[in-house]
Formats: sequence, structure tokens, C-alpha cells
Amino acid sequence: MKTEVTLGIDVGGTNTAFGFVNINGKSIVDSFIPTEGNKSANNFFARLHPAVTNLYDRISAGFELKGIGVGAPNGNYYTGKVENPPNLQWGVVDVVQMLKKYFDVPIAVTNDANASAIGEMLFGSAKGMKEFIVITLGTGLGSGVVVDGKLVYGSDGFAGEIGHTVYDPNGRQCGCGRKGCLETYASATGIKRTVMELLANSNDESTLRDVSFNKLESKMIFEAALQGDKIAKKAFEYTGKVLGLKLADAVAVTSPEAIILFGGLALAGDLIIEPTKRSMEENLFHVFKNKVKIIQSNLPEGNSAVLGAAALIWNEIIG
Amino acid sequence: MKTEVTLGIDVGGTNTAFGFVNINGKSIVDSFIPTEGNKSANNFFARLHPAVTNLYDRISAGFELKGIGVGAPNGNYYTGKVENPPNLQWGVVDVVQMLKKYFDVPIAVTNDANASAIGEMLFGSAKGMKEFIVITLGTGLGSGVVVDGKLVYGSDGFAGEIGHTVYDPNGRQCGCGRKGCLETYASATGIKRTVMELLANSNDESTLRDVSFNKLESKMIFEAALQGDKIAKKAFEYTGKVLGLKLADAVAVTSPEAIILFGGLALAGDLIIEPTKRSMEENLFHVFKNKVKIIQSNLPEGNSAVLGAAALIWNEIIG
Repeated sequence: MKTEVTLGIDVGGTNTAFGFVNINGKSIVDSFIPTEGNKSANNFFARLHPAVTNLYDRISAGFELKGIGVGAPNGNYYTGKVENPPNLQWGVVDVVQMLKKYFDVPIAVTNDANASAIGEMLFGSAKGMKEFIVITLGTGLGSGVVVDGKLVYGSDGFAGEIGHTVYDPNGRQCGCGRKGCLETYASATGIKRTVMELLANSNDESTLRDVSFNKLESKMIFEAALQGDKIAKKAFEYTGKVLGLKLADAVAVTSPEAIILFGGLALAGDLIIEPTKRSMEENLFHVFKNKVKIIQSNLPEGNSAVLGAAALIWNEIIG
Repeated sequence: MKTEVTLGIDVGGTNTAFGFVNINGKSIVDSFIPTEGNKSANNFFARLHPAVTNLYDRISAGFELKGIGVGAPNGNYYTGKVENPPNLQWGVVDVVQMLKKYFDVPIAVTNDANASAIGEMLFGSAKGMKEFIVITLGTGLGSGVVVDGKLVYGSDGFAGEIGHTVYDPNGRQCGCGRKGCLETYASATGIKRTVMELLANSNDESTLRDVSFNKLESKMIFEAALQGDKIAKKAFEYTGKVLGLKLADAVAVTSPEAIILFGGLALAGDLIIEPTKRSMEENLFHVFKNKVKIIQSNLPEGNSAVLGAAALIWNEIIG
């Protein structure tokens, strides 16, 4: 008998990763194609199809495809569409319909943070939990909210935008057109901005004074902090302070058992978790104090977005 | 055949109202007893039992009791307990067990705002909606969050505390021990505090300059605003500004179709709804703009808390 697998597809700004994943969250094979977001969606799916088929041919003797899950920017679970994704010149694209031309299996779409949340629930740190929030700390801040074992999609499919709750209405300019959104502070880009602000406001020596904004990566801030760099350490402290405050607000809405941090900045581990936890506890309404865990994702960083997308459709099939 | 009814009990700081309600949300008969929160819970339930039985005797020829729903401060749906309610000297009380001594029917407990949310879903402005938030603007600010047609209780039964999300970490002292919670601005008490602040900061003439803080009621501010009183109008404007900003944050978490305002301050209608809506729209992440309705509850003010409590158990029975 063949082993059942689903196909997870993670549409990124630069590359699109995809892979076949079994029901235990084990990736059997994976690959990627360049997204080439300046070209049309038709062009993208016409290139994706043979790449997926080639990969499937390598395993089809032993495995059977049961469904396809897609994580994509602005992916909408209800409509199956991707709606005006930033960085992709796609406009509004019916992703489910596009894929149905090539594959006759159940297909589901959502955004990458929501897919990550389902990935954590089925395969990762949230296994067995029914109430949790996943925060992805990448270029921006994405979030997926799970209530009673189900992802919250809301009335329009776009629930879970904690990155765009407001920390300071007079604060940093956000890509969304407003000011002071959480993601302008708590994300890989946010901590870079914080380093620049600290370099401006203090005279502390720092190796980060030799790095331009464009060259600066959150990993460099992490490594500097490990070396004892004051600016880098303060940057993590400040990022945690802002993130913890806004997480306290989110806890007051859905009262989760845990908040799982995922993505590049989360790799800093305790450097980001400790100040976030401290600030969250300081700002929590008393009934929630000392109840909510903040934990680092235990999904493998490399293909976790593919696992999340595969989990999305596994969750449909077994749900 | 007898008509089925449930008993709704609303435990308030001063009085406890209760009534028998049919499946269409019609109150058949209702009554109340003084809560006398300085006495024990045993004392309370020993007085409540004969009062309920007397009322039921009047209708028992034509009606059959199917269940009991209780809305009480700090009521926990999961445990059936009321845990250290403010204003009541009860400590932790197992309300379900207390009532089981007297009544052999299904019994459920939650807090008053959650009960109101279920009341709105079954009988009120949220009929037919699956994604909405109810905000009760009374002495404090309570909230009940509904996702996918179900009330969000969270990991511990205490979800839905939007009144204790933080507007200004350096702001007004809150009864919960922190500073700047939303309910210190947006509630009957909050708007009184705002009037005092405006009286301090401006020289505008106002009839409210003749009223002490303790004598001031939100209804008087409402009536003054209707007469064109500048201070009163500014107070509603400011209350809406703060409420709208924090509602925008809540929308980013669960993406509701509507937010329903309920309670004393909500009776001001457009005076509170219009500035709240304007501020919320200004602060919403773009994908949510012009989607979320803010509407006034259409449940009858007098016994709506009893209807909510009755709805809680109807929802269990028919769910």
C-alpha cells in the first residue's frame, strides 16, 4: 500500500519552496523554483506544475498525493484566492482554480503565518494545544490565532494581523500606510530600526556602528548581543518590551495557553523570549498572569513553511 | 403540551435579576432579590431558591424548566465557579453545584459580558452572525468575542477582557492595579473621568461644572451633549477616539463582521457610535477598512442581562 502524502507549497517573495509531507510531518522530498514575482501568475503556475510533477515522479511508486496546501502572502482560505500580494505582480489570482487545472485533489490556501500556526498544531510546539497564537518574526510580523483547535479566519478570511495592531499612533512609519504598527518594532526589520535609533541616541561603542542599514541583518544583531555588545542587547530588550506589551493585549482577547515565536528573529531564543515574557507579564491583566507560555518553535527552520502549508491540507483531510 | 423555558439569572452587585425565557427570547415572568454581597454565597442561594420556586409556581402549569444559565462577575464557564468576584464576599463558589442542590436540570455559568454576547447571537443584533464582538459599556467595559458561531472562552475560561487591553501604559489608574486600561476611558465611569479632565483643561462653560464627580451619571453627560454642551460633546468624542483605536486592535485579531455596543453608555446611540466608528476606521489595517459595522444592541435594556443568561443555557441545549 502506498503511503499518503500532501504537497505543501510556500510562495515566497524570492523563491517558492514545495515538498511532499506525510501525516507525521516528515518531509519526503522537497525542491523550489524562483517565484519571479514580476511575471504573471499564469507564468508562475505553468513553471510550478512540471517542477512538482518531476519531484512527484521520483516518489510516486511508494506515495500517493492526497491534497495540496498553499501558504502565500494575502492568501485567503475562504475564497482560495491570493489578493494583491505585496512583492508579486499577480493582482487577484484564484490559486485553487489555477492548481485544479493540473491536480485533481483537495486544495486549500491561506497566508504563511496561518499555515505556520497549523504546522505548529499538527507537527510542532503546539501539538495537542487547542488555544494558542503563533507569531512569525520575519521581515514583518505575521500571526495565526487558534481557538478551540481551529484557526481563526474571521468574517473575511483575514483575521490574525497582530503585526498591524498599533503600539504608538505617532510612531514609526509602516508599510501599510499607518504609523506605529507592532511590526515596525518587532520583526527583523523592526530590530534593525531599533539599532539605528539606539546608535543615534547613545554613545555606547558598538560593532554595529560599522554596518549600514541595508547591510545590517538581525542575525548580526544576535551575534553582537552574544558578544556583549550593549547596543545589540538593548535592541533585543526594547523589541521584547514592545512585543510583550502588545501580546498582553492579544492574550486579553483569546486567552491562549501559549504563544509560539517562529522565524528568523525567534532564533535568538532567550535573547528575545526573556524580555518579551517579562514585558508581557508586567502588562497582563491579573487573571492571565503566570499562565501563558512563550516558547520557541521547534519546527525545522529550513522547510517549516512547507510543513505548514502541507499541514493546512492535512488538517482539512483528517478534520 | 407545556412550553419549554430556561431560567436566566443575572447576579449584579446590588440586585440579582432572574426570569423564565422561551426559545424565542421572550421573557415570561421575571423578578429579583437583593444580592447582599456582604453575606455568604450559601445565604444568597438559600434566599434565591424560594424566590425562583415562587416565580416558577406561577407559570408551571403551562411551562417546563429545561435549564438554568447564570451570568455573574468572574463566572467561569469551564469550572462552573465564580472566582473572587469584586463587590461580593463570596471567594470561590461552585455555582453549578450550589444550584444542583435545588434544581435537577442542565446549568451553565459565565460572566455577564459573555452571556450578553450569546444573548445578542440568539435573540438580538447579532442574530445569524458567526463572527462578532459585544462590548458592554457599563460601570466597566466588558466584552464577549464570538468566533465561528461560538463564544471564545480561551484556555482558562477568561477570554474576552478587551476592557483591560492597554490604551496608555502611563494613563489612568485602573481598578485592576495597572494603568491606562481601556475601561478607564470607555465606560460610564471612564466618560465621567474624561468630563473631569476636560473641566480641568478648558474654560468652556458647562452645566456639568455644577455636578460633583460622585453625583455625575453618564446619562447626565448624554443629556448635556444633546443640549449642545461643549464639554459633554468633547467627552463623547474623546471616549469614541480611545474606544475606536482599541477596537481596531481587536479587529486585527479576530476580524469580526460587527461590533455591538451594549449597556448604559451605548444608549447614547450616535453620540458614541459615530466617533467610535470614525476612530476605528482611521486606525484599521487597510484590509479591514469599511467592513466592520458598529451597531447598538437591540435587546431590551431592562432585562437583557437575564435574557443573556437564559440564552447561555438555550445555546447549550440546542447547540
